Amino acid sequence: MTGKLLSVAGYNAWLGFNRVESSKISNPYVDWCGRIVAAEKGEIFGTAAAELTRGIESLFGIRPLTSESTEGFRCITFGTFEGGNELISRTFGAEIRSTIVPEGYAIKTNAADGCIAIGASTASGVLYGVFHLLRLLGTGCSVDKLELVENPNNGLRMINQWDNIDGSIERGYAGESIFYVNNEITMNMERVRDYARLLASIGINAIAINNVNVHKYETMLLTDKFLPDVAKLADVFRAYGIKLFLSINFASPIEIGGLSTADPLDPTVRNWWSRITAKIYTAISDFGGFLVKADSENRPGPFTYGRDHADGSNMLAEALQPHGGIVIWRCFVYNCKQDWRDRSTDRARAAFDHFKPLDGRFHDNVILQIKNGPMDFQVREPVSPLFGALEATNQVIEFQITQEYTGQQRHLCYLVPQWKEVLDFQTHAKGGNPSVKRIVDGSVYGRRFGGFAAVSNIGNDANWTGHLLAQANLYGYGRLAWNTELSAEAIAEEWVRLTFGGDDRVVRTIKGMLIHSWSIYESYTAPLGVGWMVNPDHHYGPNVDGYEYSKWGTYHFADCRGVGVDRTVKTGTGYAGQYMGDNAARYESVENCPDELLLFFHHVPYTHVLHSGVTVIQHIYDSHFNGVERAEQLEETWSGLAGIVNEGLYEQVAERLKEQAEHAREWCDMINTYFYRKSGIADQLGRKIYS
Amino acid sequence: MTGKLLSVAGYNAWLGFNRVESSKISNPYVDWCGRIVAAEKGEIFGTAAAELTRGIESLFGIRPLTSESTEGFRCITFGTFEGGNELISRTFGAEIRSTIVPEGYAIKTNAADGCIAIGASTASGVLYGVFHLLRLLGTGCSVDKLELVENPNNGLRMINQWDNIDGSIERGYAGESIFYVNNEITMNMERVRDYARLLASIGINAIAINNVNVHKYETMLLTDKFLPDVAKLADVFRAYGIKLFLSINFASPIEIGGLSTADPLDPTVRNWWSRITAKIYTAISDFGGFLVKADSENRPGPFTYGRDHADGSNMLAEALQPHGGIVIWRCFVYNCKQDWRDRSTDRARAAFDHFKPLDGRFHDNVILQIKNGPMDFQVREPVSPLFGALEATNQVIEFQITQEYTGQQRHLCYLVPQWKEVLDFQTHAKGGNPSVKRIVDGSVYGRRFGGFAAVSNIGNDANWTGHLLAQANLYGYGRLAWNTELSAEAIAEEWVRLTFGGDDRVVRTIKGMLIHSWSIYESYTAPLGVGWMVNPDHHYGPNVDGYEYSKWGTYHFADCRGVGVDRTVKTGTGYAGQYMGDNAARYESVENCPDELLLFFHHVPYTHVLHSGVTVIQHIYDSHFNGVERAEQLEETWSGLAGIVNEGLYEQVAERLKEQAEHAREWCDMINTYFYRKSGIADQLGRKIYS
Repeated sequence: MTGKLLSVAGYNAWLGFNRVESSKISNPYVDWCGRIVAAEKGEIFGTAAAELTRGIESLFGIRPLTSESTEGFRCITFGTFEGGNELISRTFGAEIRSTIVPEGYAIKTNAADGCIAIGASTASGVLYGVFHLLRLLGTGCSVDKLELVENPNNGLRMINQWDNIDGSIERGYAGESIFYVNNEITMNMERVRDYARLLASIGINAIAINNVNVHKYETMLLTDKFLPDVAKLADVFRAYGIKLFLSINFASPIEIGGLSTADPLDPTVRNWWSRITAKIYTAISDFGGFLVKADSENRPGPFTYGRDHADGSNMLAEALQPHGGIVIWRCFVYNCKQDWRDRSTDRARAAFDHFKPLDGRFHDNVILQIKNGPMDFQVREPVSPLFGALEATNQVIEFQITQEYTGQQRHLCYLVPQWKEVLDFQTHAKGGNPSVKRIVDGSVYGRRFGGFAAVSNIGNDANWTGHLLAQANLYGYGRLAWNTELSAEAIAEEWVRLTFGGDDRVVRTIKGMLIHSWSIYESYTAPLGVGWMVNPDHHYGPNVDGYEYSKWGTYHFADCRGVGVDRTVKTGTGYAGQYMGDNAARYESVENCPDELLLFFHHVPYTHVLHSGVTVIQHIYDSHFNGVERAEQLEETWSGLAGIVNEGLYEQVAERLKEQAEHAREWCDMINTYFYRKSGIADQLGRKIYS
Repeated sequence: MTGKLLSVAGYNAWLGFNRVESSKISNPYVDWCGRIVAAEKGEIFGTAAAELTRGIESLFGIRPLTSESTEGFRCITFGTFEGGNELISRTFGAEIRSTIVPEGYAIKTNAADGCIAIGASTASGVLYGVFHLLRLLGTGCSVDKLELVENPNNGLRMINQWDNIDGSIERGYAGESIFYVNNEITMNMERVRDYARLLASIGINAIAINNVNVHKYETMLLTDKFLPDVAKLADVFRAYGIKLFLSINFASPIEIGGLSTADPLDPTVRNWWSRITAKIYTAISDFGGFLVKADSENRPGPFTYGRDHADGSNMLAEALQPHGGIVIWRCFVYNCKQDWRDRSTDRARAAFDHFKPLDGRFHDNVILQIKNGPMDFQVREPVSPLFGALEATNQVIEFQITQEYTGQQRHLCYLVPQWKEVLDFQTHAKGGNPSVKRIVDGSVYGRRFGGFAAVSNIGNDANWTGHLLAQANLYGYGRLAWNTELSAEAIAEEWVRLTFGGDDRVVRTIKGMLIHSWSIYESYTAPLGVGWMVNPDHHYGPNVDGYEYSKWGTYHFADCRGVGVDRTVKTGTGYAGQYMGDNAARYESVENCPDELLLFFHHVPYTHVLHSGVTVIQHIYDSHFNGVERAEQLEETWSGLAGIVNEGLYEQVAERLKEQAEHAREWCDMINTYFYRKSGIADQLGRKIYS
């Protein structure tokens, strides 16, 4: 294996479209793929044609002819319903057209006319359809009798880059930024374009290109200094149907506007935002809007002026409204200078306490971005109680694809199962029982906007995500944002087939590794939903008391008798009462609270018996020892694929799994020793716990 | 008070020589000080004359005449015994001359000849005598009947700068380096000269100007790129009788020499060191030599080549020998990649285990530099058992003036009392009972070299040390290195008088604050000698488990039953056995071990009763609550000096004491809560411990 091989393996990710062995190419494929008929002009149509051509070449080693003419051999054709492509017109009748939303599409094998037709009402829909067809081809599906309709569940399917203009990435675990080098916007548009391809192929339609923590230089992205280069990035994404957003600094009027205030009710401030927004739209006609982290973790915000988050976000919304732009306002607002001695303040309560009272006061082009849980992307948290509680407010759910607290792409942790649990959570809202996914897609309360946002996990590492298997998280995020009904297993299988090819053993093995990885990671890290226990700042590696006496509001309160946070209404912080109906009651009750969240909601003795039948302390020992074994098994399992999967890909993963197994041992021993020292209770099975 | 006032107050430190109020100037002072007679030529004599002139001007507002002529009015005169100054010759007879070592001096009021005479056998001795006289004048002592002889106890009185060439200072708490700016040697020689004055005034005669951790650019200090500028620094220090040393990178032959090895037994390597050393002496004829941190904390060293520290240091010694240079080789060598699970490895043992077997193998221009304690400058440690154990090896004791683990110059911690305890420690060596100070001065074993080295606490802050009162540590270090018999109280009083003037209340108050400050700091930080419990990396602030599961070999092993490290021979790591005679027996015994070191040597239950009569857990609570009160009292005490001491000085200290009181509370609460949670034992006095 050469260094070069290692350095490029994985770059094409799920769009590599490994050549199908000639023996396996059945005639029908080649029949359909020899010709592409595309009648319409436009950038995204061009992208669609190019991607289809590239994919077919890669898969079958043939270069399809492209023509505008609908006459001739069998073909693949695509177009909008009203675009004048006769094959499209003939394939899709009025009835089917009426079921397709703007970004949706239909694909049908039209034997009569000799085409596979991809029809949509917009160019973006066409592009998504093309990627869908490529996915089918790439996973070896038959295309002889296609007849499908796809509409996205969510209107907004967004990626947040936490990239800083100095090239660093906050919580980035895959190298430096692909967007910025040395305080300038990159000149390497090829890499950006390759990222845009990956995103479009999984249905992403929006991207905020800079960190939500907007520092001095990033604040200037709105100015003439950077705007022309931002526009170039927007051009790249536009060709893939993706709108560009900027994270903004709420104090911009002061920092770059020369004003003495950023008070959202001050007319000069409002005027300043209107002017600068108009200027952005002059440079980028389809600019998406602003992403805002305000009054959070030392960022400026409306609180400075005695205003609230509705005042702040509405001001920006008004500036964007004439241009069709939106404000995405994060709900990650809490007191990050808490005193650890203060047992009444509860960070988990903060988002609900701040935003629930504002429900109904936000303009209709404001969207609140709510983290999946009340804390901060822990391996296990309850679902944020804001979902369902906000009835008259647009909202998107925020996930974190980058594995800040879930192994930092050094450990395998396929997050789709976690996200699925969150999305399927029953909120007991609106007197019924809608799941989170129906809240965030806007359907329950009939909201104008809804969807997903997530923090990207890519950087300039050759394989994008550092850990090759972490590509599955980016892939899964997009697929799930599009279709929340997909199972974690189905997504994993798709991804494995596209990335590693269709060998059954490979598919079965890697899929299994992915599916169990979240549970494995959880089992050797912080127990029973209590969270944290990581090293401060960088958040990698075990440190049981790492945040215990900090100002961050993240505690476990372990003492010689027990552990956990009492968040009940009766004796604790009252957080459990932020849920509706049965949820509140279930979390309030130590008997009914699910084991995996017990320590999030209750402080219990080490001898408390779980539903599983073992005590808390024994569970800690069992799960940690078990977690190490399972992490070691991952390494072992992977080694069975040596010589079967691409060597470059194999080695990348083998190296990470080795580190994971070693580091799982560190977690296990440290956590077990900590709790053994604290509780004085021995392991019933007499395994080695260091004293 | 102006910013300017604040920014300059303290710059002159103990050489400010506040104007004596005219009403207090007794005639005799002015009589003696009107004329300076200095007959000899030479740089250091020039320095002596200039310092004396400056001091007199500052104190009395008169500018003394200087002349070479011994005829005339009363005068102050100085010179070497053989320098031809008749006043010196007449004042000091052969008997007294024979008692003066090269750097020593005599001062005598010679009424018959109408002079105060400072005589010495070297120019440096003269300079030290001049500073001594200034100190007497500055503290208001009568000079009418002076008759004193001073010889330094220690030959080497060295300062180590942990300055990096990028301008940062490792463990620096008073701004940036005064030696380096942006990877260049400073052009600001005035600041360097002012530092040299301060050092010479307290008897320092050697300085290593760069961090013992020698990184890429500092390695190049030996090369033509930097040597001319290093020579300029040497020039500045030479005028104050201070020799310049460089910390070197053991891997220099590879990094800057182009060799493939740094093996100390390789002839090409030896040759390379000889050549580069000769080149240094061409640039700096009185270059002091090399300071070396090797095979320690990831620094390169002889271990890489299967050689030992005698091989490594002797190689450098041979290169330096022809030029009269010396090697100072640090004994801070231990395994910094220890596994916290490993209870048998004990970092405390490391220096002794590494260096005791090498005793006798070092060349006579090699000096081992041994930290005062076996760990790393904790607020409380036992004395290093290497003192007394090395019989045939030159050694210096290393103290840390910079307050890395003792409050980082944000807390007041006058360290002289700690150093005194170390120096007065009875080693039971050589069948007798010599104290550490007699070991390190070389007298017990008749060694050629001996003395003190210490890590400086200054930076480019206007007042040098950040915390103004931390100047007392630098002052005290120099004074103690010169005269180990001085008491901590006497040194404190000198320093206060020189810095703040002679007001009795001021002297009594500040002296009292200094004297108690170590005990105060100890009382609210890690208890009973166990050490650490600080935040990793930066080492500021409480974190009980901060190093508990680390690789650094620094543990307290607290569990629900007890706390401490078993370092006994019988059941522990055996470290106690590295001591001689009664010391070994005393530390081995849990009954006889001094309370303040109990947890360093023993793991005991929380209910263990101390000699003080209280249990370990109650002691923890008592000392921490008490420590906070005493820290608050410091602030209160200082406030009584408002309007009495210089306003600029007052404000600087007031600010730090406020922070200290607040932070002492943080230490107290965190440590108490930690141990309450862990032990489950309540405070007998029912004070507030957060659960």
